[in-house]
Amino acid sequence: MALIVQKYGGTSVADLDRIRNVAARIKRAVDAGDRVAVVVSAMAGTTNQLVAWVHGLDPANYDPAEYDQVVSTGEPITIGLVAIALQSLGVPARSFLGWQAGIRTDGAHGKARIVAIEPQAVQACLEKGKVAVVAGFQGIGPDGRVTTLGRGGSDTSAVALAAALRAERCDIYTDVDGVYTTDPRIVAKAKKLDRITYEEMLEMASVGAKVLETRSVALAMQHRVRVQVLSSFEDRPGTLVVDEDEIVESQIVSGIAYSRNEARITVQQVEDRPGVAAAVFGPLAEANINVDMIVQSVSRDGRFANITFTVSKADLPRAEAVLARVKERIGFERLVADPNVVKVSVIGVGMRSHAGIAHKMFQTLADKGINIQAISTSEIKISVLIADEYTELALRALHSAYGLDAA
Amino acid sequence: MALIVQKYGGTSVADLDRIRNVAARIKRAVDAGDRVAVVVSAMAGTTNQLVAWVHGLDPANYDPAEYDQVVSTGEPITIGLVAIALQSLGVPARSFLGWQAGIRTDGAHGKARIVAIEPQAVQACLEKGKVAVVAGFQGIGPDGRVTTLGRGGSDTSAVALAAALRAERCDIYTDVDGVYTTDPRIVAKAKKLDRITYEEMLEMASVGAKVLETRSVALAMQHRVRVQVLSSFEDRPGTLVVDEDEIVESQIVSGIAYSRNEARITVQQVEDRPGVAAAVFGPLAEANINVDMIVQSVSRDGRFANITFTVSKADLPRAEAVLARVKERIGFERLVADPNVVKVSVIGVGMRSHAGIAHKMFQTLADKGINIQAISTSEIKISVLIADEYTELALRALHSAYGLDAA
Repeated sequence: MALIVQKYGGTSVADLDRIRNVAARIKRAVDAGDRVAVVVSAMAGTTNQLVAWVHGLDPANYDPAEYDQVVSTGEPITIGLVAIALQSLGVPARSFLGWQAGIRTDGAHGKARIVAIEPQAVQACLEKGKVAVVAGFQGIGPDGRVTTLGRGGSDTSAVALAAALRAERCDIYTDVDGVYTTDPRIVAKAKKLDRITYEEMLEMASVGAKVLETRSVALAMQHRVRVQVLSSFEDRPGTLVVDEDEIVESQIVSGIAYSRNEARITVQQVEDRPGVAAAVFGPLAEANINVDMIVQSVSRDGRFANITFTVSKADLPRAEAVLARVKERIGFERLVADPNVVKVSVIGVGMRSHAGIAHKMFQTLADKGINIQAISTSEIKISVLIADEYTELALRALHSAYGLDAA
Repeated sequence: MALIVQKYGGTSVADLDRIRNVAARIKRAVDAGDRVAVVVSAMAGTTNQLVAWVHGLDPANYDPAEYDQVVSTGEPITIGLVAIALQSLGVPARSFLGWQAGIRTDGAHGKARIVAIEPQAVQACLEKGKVAVVAGFQGIGPDGRVTTLGRGGSDTSAVALAAALRAERCDIYTDVDGVYTTDPRIVAKAKKLDRITYEEMLEMASVGAKVLETRSVALAMQHRVRVQVLSSFEDRPGTLVVDEDEIVESQIVSGIAYSRNEARITVQQVEDRPGVAAAVFGPLAEANINVDMIVQSVSRDGRFANITFTVSKADLPRAEAVLARVKERIGFERLVADPNVVKVSVIGVGMRSHAGIAHKMFQTLADKGINIQAISTSEIKISVLIADEYTELALRALHSAYGLDAA
């Protein structure tokens, strides 16, 4: 008899028919002998309506505690409805608000972090043979007010609850059926992965493959919670996110991810003196703008350099404004910004023990005539920045080159 | 500096514009130097939608605790929005869920009763110069689950909070501007009352003048909370519901109310023996059917009687079925049911010290040729049952006869 946490997102509980479908799915797990705790999101569209009301009253300076009070009201509807749908199938169930489930957070309204889960009430419910239906996305702050975890926070609620309950697995039901070697909308030969490591999933999430929120993956890794991503509209296993030692024979490369959320800035002809990088990146850091890939190239005579880096597309206008303000102080010739770039990443824990992965990437792109504008690497990831018109070409070529194409 | 509780119903907070209007009204009280605690309902229509979802999943046997979890989610939206609207006018404010405001109830989900209010958190908020915005209709049961007080429960929340805070007054904002001597849609000369006693208000509410829920009036009377009924769409005083000794010169008759929610049943030619009334009303009581007016008339030879009584229209089919089942045991000739009746009531605390009030009622109706089918009285009320086609005629004639017509 295993203890499973299941999480259903907003599209899975969007109306009464889908809620009945979710209840039937939970019943199957209960009938199979599992004890089940369920974490649910708000019905699709609800939270957007609530946010729109807050912004309609006060677009800018609203009190984040009151924002949380308003936007935390969607999940409490779903928990009651799912419990009723279960009961009408003969499955004993009861609902829990965040505070009733003991989900304690810090006081950072709108983006609170879970500091502890006191799972006694949920445990008692499970021990009585009932399904516990818990509101995701919300908790209770140190002052007894309702907090929310930020968008996608229900995944984090589910993983944290699974950790607190020492659950065998945390099943994240969503509208895709798993994690793929790359985006199947672009590469027809993309394959669903049976397993992927936490580290790889983290890198995939951080470069745009938003199947799971980054925070929930980091939390799962920290507490070694086995997470399964699967579809609530189909009936087959999804992708299991697990510890590296659970993967018997790992691929060298597990997936190719990409992110269109990048923009490139080049500061041209800046004097190449000590402290010049600090002069460029200091003001950006002060403006809370994250810089990702950085390349510095020096001119032939060694007196001037070009500094190229990426920021998120959303930050590009602010970054340009910040640098324009300090142009005199830094002393550069001009600023070139290009939002038409994409970051393509090759990800795999096998890289640690295999040489030549980067070389194969560069060679494959060169063979297709694709120019690399910047490079960054981590222990299990190589990322390159290229012109976004080459996205599809690059993904398909790399997917083949690393032997990921489905038979 | 007075402490006022204000309560706004669903139509008063139906959309963002109306919420801004409510915030502006609260601000005026704050600017005038009052400390204000506000109780709000859900946005009009919200609770009906929530109830419809529950019934859509399970029309009959739903768990009342889960029903409460679902239908209690409307007010938590409004409290946050009203707090934000106040803050954007520069009025410090914070919201309170039922449990945060210390509203403790029994465990009778769907129709819970408030057993205590622990007002310390709300008091602390008021003492800091903030407006406290409290969710009506909800509380927390002995097991830590959310309860609801039943329809109209927000009035009860407001009066109970006013009692706990020892507020100077509880202002109930609604879509009518006060309590009238009779229904102004029927009697054009109806006058708004400046003041009315708790006892009169209770009788008015119980015979259909549903300006305030009966429970909230009873609670106000018990704790001597001064209640004002007024419109949130206009700017003038409403009707004050107060203790009798606050009314200097009371009218003998304060109002004429009516209820179309009655049906008459006559059990004809029942044998007039001891215990026959018990034989008729026992099975109705067992079926949880309330009986109101009762008239028993005996035949000329004293052997048979007719028993006439009223039940609510909703209970009429069940009452007929119950009596049909026991017809043999009771031994009556036949059952005559008539739903086309109305109960008209003359109400006034002055009746206690004045004779002739009933006589004037009967004479006035007789002069108009209206037949009285049944009579019931209380210390401050005389009610008669008449054919409902005479409703308007009777109300207008009685309104004049008791000197209530506006000049």
